[in-house]
Amino acid sequence: MFDRLRQQMAFVAEIDRLKQVCRQTYVNDGSRHDNSAEHSWHFAVIALVLAEYAPAGVDVGRVVKMALIHDLVEIDAGDTFIYDAAASGDKIARERRAAGRIFGLLPEDQATELRALWEEFEARLTPDAKFAAALDRVEPIMHNYHTRGGAWKEHGVKASGVIGVNSRIGASSEELWQYIRGIIEECIAKGYLEDDRQTST
Amino acid sequence: MFDRLRQQMAFVAEIDRLKQVCRQTYVNDGSRHDNSAEHSWHFAVIALVLAEYAPAGVDVGRVVKMALIHDLVEIDAGDTFIYDAAASGDKIARERRAAGRIFGLLPEDQATELRALWEEFEARLTPDAKFAAALDRVEPIMHNYHTRGGAWKEHGVKASGVIGVNSRIGASSEELWQYIRGIIEECIAKGYLEDDRQTST
Repeated sequence: MFDRLRQQMAFVAEIDRLKQVCRQTYVNDGSRHDNSAEHSWHFAVIALVLAEYAPAGVDVGRVVKMALIHDLVEIDAGDTFIYDAAASGDKIARERRAAGRIFGLLPEDQATELRALWEEFEARLTPDAKFAAALDRVEPIMHNYHTRGGAWKEHGVKASGVIGVNSRIGASSEELWQYIRGIIEECIAKGYLEDDRQTST
Repeated sequence: MFDRLRQQMAFVAEIDRLKQVCRQTYVNDGSRHDNSAEHSWHFAVIALVLAEYAPAGVDVGRVVKMALIHDLVEIDAGDTFIYDAAASGDKIARERRAAGRIFGLLPEDQATELRALWEEFEARLTPDAKFAAALDRVEPIMHNYHTRGGAWKEHGVKASGVIGVNSRIGASSEELWQYIRGIIEECIAKGYLEDDRQTST
């Protein structure tokens, strides 16, 4: 009795460790870094609130699920800063191993389902995953805006990098991307983000 | 242009403050208190993983939404420890004012929808809200188990209190309650929780 529930609760206990995975961005008041559990919560609420910008056919309930589980692999693999090209090299292998172990704590049917959902998010090929990937970018842009470019400045990230990484938002929602593009330009104008773009003369 | 999106993003930025609302429970490794944003994330994942224990007719997607927004009022009203009877006195009034301000940042249609969902959660009358209220108890029990009764001991909470507060789990899922009841008994047996129950002799 309770064998299945015990497995589920072992997973619930293990994922508590996501609260200890530190991200590079700072919370809005700049007092400390945020962590991947908080970020996952914020991302999921953003999905609820910005659901109307999803392309037709996107299942926002699935996007919320993706948000909730998308960073669990970081318990083993750590958070990879999106602007860190070197660390991104073996990220896929590290995260795959982590997915095997962490989702593997669940009963097999649930392990298979959540792992597939995570793989779908990572591959960014389906409309649900593309929209999720776009929304995953909203919180760090907001944090950098509110902390006057905190994490960007600390790591020497410049405008061309931020525009390059975040242009994926436009692959799902042109409206959201235009809005975020405006925030990035405001950050450049306010000196939160260094402008390294080539100007044609 | 972007007026609606700007309102939505003001809400998204404001709710970042939930990450600063400290709870009484400790994360599983005991290193620090958890906060209400992390708890909301954990609660939402618990809803995904334990969905099968919901009574027939419960909409788990709505339960996940409740989990994500259920503590937002704490940004203004603070976290009220469930065993603190004195602070619970004006909790309802404080939280209602908070709900008006925080959900009121959103465009009116979304403010109305999310406030209604929060009121439904608080009232615990619908099957969705009863199941959500049950799941909201899972994480703190787990934290107290893993920290050997950390928050319980700190606040002098005893077995009769824990059983009383958590018996609401049984109002939604007898199976979950039987399991959690077993964990509480284990906590008593291990000395994590003082047994103050009357024994008939």
